[in-house]
Amino acid sequence: MSTQAQIGVTGLAVMGRNLARNLARNGFTVAVHNRTAARTDALVAEFGEEGDFVATRTAKEFVAALERPRRLVVMVKAGEPTDAVIDEFAPLLEPGDMIIDGGNAHFADTRRRERLLRERDLHFVGTGISGGEEGALHGPSIMPGGSAESYAVLGPILERIAAKAEDGTPCVSHVGPDGAGHFVKMVHNGIEYADMQLIGEAYQLLRDVAGYTPGRISDIFRTWNTGRLDSYLIEITAEVLAHVDEYTGKPFVDVVADAAEQKGTGRWTVQTALDLGVPVSGIAEAVFARSLSGHVPLREASRSLEGPTPRALSEEEAAAFADRVEQALYASKIMSYTQGFHEITAGAEEYGWGIDPGAVAALWRGGCIIRAAFLDRIRAAYDTRPDLPSLLSDATFAREVADAQDDWREVMVAATRQGVPAPGFAAALAYYDALRAERLPAALVQGQRDFFGAHTYRRTDREGSFHTLWGGDRSEVEA
Amino acid sequence: MSTQAQIGVTGLAVMGRNLARNLARNGFTVAVHNRTAARTDALVAEFGEEGDFVATRTAKEFVAALERPRRLVVMVKAGEPTDAVIDEFAPLLEPGDMIIDGGNAHFADTRRRERLLRERDLHFVGTGISGGEEGALHGPSIMPGGSAESYAVLGPILERIAAKAEDGTPCVSHVGPDGAGHFVKMVHNGIEYADMQLIGEAYQLLRDVAGYTPGRISDIFRTWNTGRLDSYLIEITAEVLAHVDEYTGKPFVDVVADAAEQKGTGRWTVQTALDLGVPVSGIAEAVFARSLSGHVPLREASRSLEGPTPRALSEEEAAAFADRVEQALYASKIMSYTQGFHEITAGAEEYGWGIDPGAVAALWRGGCIIRAAFLDRIRAAYDTRPDLPSLLSDATFAREVADAQDDWREVMVAATRQGVPAPGFAAALAYYDALRAERLPAALVQGQRDFFGAHTYRRTDREGSFHTLWGGDRSEVEA
Repeated sequence: MSTQAQIGVTGLAVMGRNLARNLARNGFTVAVHNRTAARTDALVAEFGEEGDFVATRTAKEFVAALERPRRLVVMVKAGEPTDAVIDEFAPLLEPGDMIIDGGNAHFADTRRRERLLRERDLHFVGTGISGGEEGALHGPSIMPGGSAESYAVLGPILERIAAKAEDGTPCVSHVGPDGAGHFVKMVHNGIEYADMQLIGEAYQLLRDVAGYTPGRISDIFRTWNTGRLDSYLIEITAEVLAHVDEYTGKPFVDVVADAAEQKGTGRWTVQTALDLGVPVSGIAEAVFARSLSGHVPLREASRSLEGPTPRALSEEEAAAFADRVEQALYASKIMSYTQGFHEITAGAEEYGWGIDPGAVAALWRGGCIIRAAFLDRIRAAYDTRPDLPSLLSDATFAREVADAQDDWREVMVAATRQGVPAPGFAAALAYYDALRAERLPAALVQGQRDFFGAHTYRRTDREGSFHTLWGGDRSEVEA
Repeated sequence: MSTQAQIGVTGLAVMGRNLARNLARNGFTVAVHNRTAARTDALVAEFGEEGDFVATRTAKEFVAALERPRRLVVMVKAGEPTDAVIDEFAPLLEPGDMIIDGGNAHFADTRRRERLLRERDLHFVGTGISGGEEGALHGPSIMPGGSAESYAVLGPILERIAAKAEDGTPCVSHVGPDGAGHFVKMVHNGIEYADMQLIGEAYQLLRDVAGYTPGRISDIFRTWNTGRLDSYLIEITAEVLAHVDEYTGKPFVDVVADAAEQKGTGRWTVQTALDLGVPVSGIAEAVFARSLSGHVPLREASRSLEGPTPRALSEEEAAAFADRVEQALYASKIMSYTQGFHEITAGAEEYGWGIDPGAVAALWRGGCIIRAAFLDRIRAAYDTRPDLPSLLSDATFAREVADAQDDWREVMVAATRQGVPAPGFAAALAYYDALRAERLPAALVQGQRDFFGAHTYRRTDREGSFHTLWGGDRSEVEA
């Protein structure tokens, strides 16, 4: 074998195949390998002319085909298959070589694997890749963790194959050590869940309160997509809503079963936030909304529960309402991102990752599912003030929410009175009002806890922990 | 040593000590043991006259003091200390003996321990105990898991020391195998979080919207406690709100720092529900509300965010509003319990526990923090129809929510317009409206997922999985 490949991809299902093609199309010589050789052959037969592929049959051959330090991309199903591939390849590698895991691994697994391979002088680069099949081929958003040393060697390749933001910057940068990349990818997905849920609620309100057809709502989303909501998800929502089912002639959205499915990452985002003590209520409501929708027998048993009688809006009222929904959607979206970025900064602090939140916003601007004009503004907010306590501390976002809030509240009033579920909007507004609150009922909760469990409380006017002798004379003692 | 003890307690911190005293006061001979003997001596010196204690110094002595099959209650901190105690005692035990873990263990740990000890022919009985120190002494609510065989031997003792419901029934029964007891205790705590949060929101609304003082709100809670909200938590809320700080003369609730603390069980309830695919949005909001309250710098940075201008209510309007808050609180409480019992039935199904939800409601009627008249009605609902799809399928609860909903909605409207955060009420109402909904935007979500990730969807009119060729001619293919 004379050609030395600059990078290798093992695992040639659709994501791996497209990533290998993307690499080859960008001028890299790519060694390819798959557990069953048929997929390797098919890739070369079908797409061999797109660039330089080195088809390899065995793990040994694959490793031998790579120039040093080796860059070995693993594109297998997250979980045990990843460990199996690591066990197979690690003994064949030499100090300084790197294994890049491009699957949707849990960041805790990535941390474990990175630690183990570091002991063997190998780099393990857990890498979030977003954008699905199309992104993998044409340019994904790439979130690599692992050592800075590995990024120095790997980065230039990733920058070539990544999506480019509108200003031409590649949507990739070194997120932080060990599991930082997969962590950020996880939160990306959590935010994606929230974005989709909020869009779904906006749709439902336009349908049930404004009384609009899916076609008309599609037009509204298309208009919104020319403004501050400009994003991939708004764009495809307009497409989906405009689509007419070829069999029934009905709006497509009306023939699709309304039971949403999910993989693990949205759930992980919430579970991790709970461990970190970060309120991500909007993301949680999005995950719960999907699971609720799938509980079909429960929903059937609940359909006879009483609700309010909906009130029809006049054409004029409906148009005004639609404008308000845009405000509500935008304000709620700001809350989701505030929560998501809070989780990222909390994770970075917990694990000592030193993540730059502005850089994360920047690398989500292209290639990934939540790509949006909005992200440029988040980056700008963090660029202006890297230690921003939260997105809402940015004057521009604060101003926009202030301007939106009257409409946002009226949309919630309509949803509440008309009985249209809007858990995401509601959670977002409650989060906003809770953050603003001078005093929260948490003081009462601390009092209750001290009463039934002697858990003690702090005071507003003095340092220390205190307990009231509730069962005695109710005097206060220092704890 | 001539006396053979019927039961033994190791770990004599306040919970263990009180449980040992409860056992002795009920006529059992109790062997007691602690890692440091000073605590054992102190217990016997101080409370020896309450009953028959057998003080033991070593693990061997402790085990030798117990009649066969041995009943050995472990009251140590959950986690590694539990494993350490098991490692110490298990080798000294004989087939058929039982270790009862009365700590707040995660049910997954309990399952692991039960499996390990079963291999050694020992019973491991993970047991939820609720009621705090006072409950342990005077009668807790007890939720034992483990084998039915172990309950046959252990149950009669637990029934003597447990709290008694108003009808005299002991608040204990065999919940189910292995981790079922600790699982149910976990959900109990999650519901407790939700109950406390909802009470907190009701308080805040009465304060900020109705403009009432804590003293006046205390009176309202006292009145509510004579009706369908009759419960321990409402009772102590009235006490806490009536309390005046001895140093400042201000209402106690105003001098307590409004940063709520938490241990792990509320968080576990939500994390487990996410794994089980059960929407527990109300419990999640309660957990998030506690963590949000504790983010002091974030709250300080957010205090200048704009909100609506509050509107003062007339005395008459305020009184009407207070009545509505009772309706909202009650309806929201029904949603929390619906979600909690959903989690219990889903857990029982996942792990093959065969839990009787009505029996769980029954054993929460006394001794524990969420004890309430309400639980008798939940038990009645499940007694009438053991396969109830959800609490809301019970005609009485459905009727009550139907009657409450107008007021519930108007309370939410007031909270929304006045900017008072009510995340628990909001999540509860959105849950109710989502369950009722004929169609959910989950159909749109499935369309989006199919668009960007070819995740396929189901149709309402035909079996099978389908995919639309979004990038092509938009025809539909069977997947």
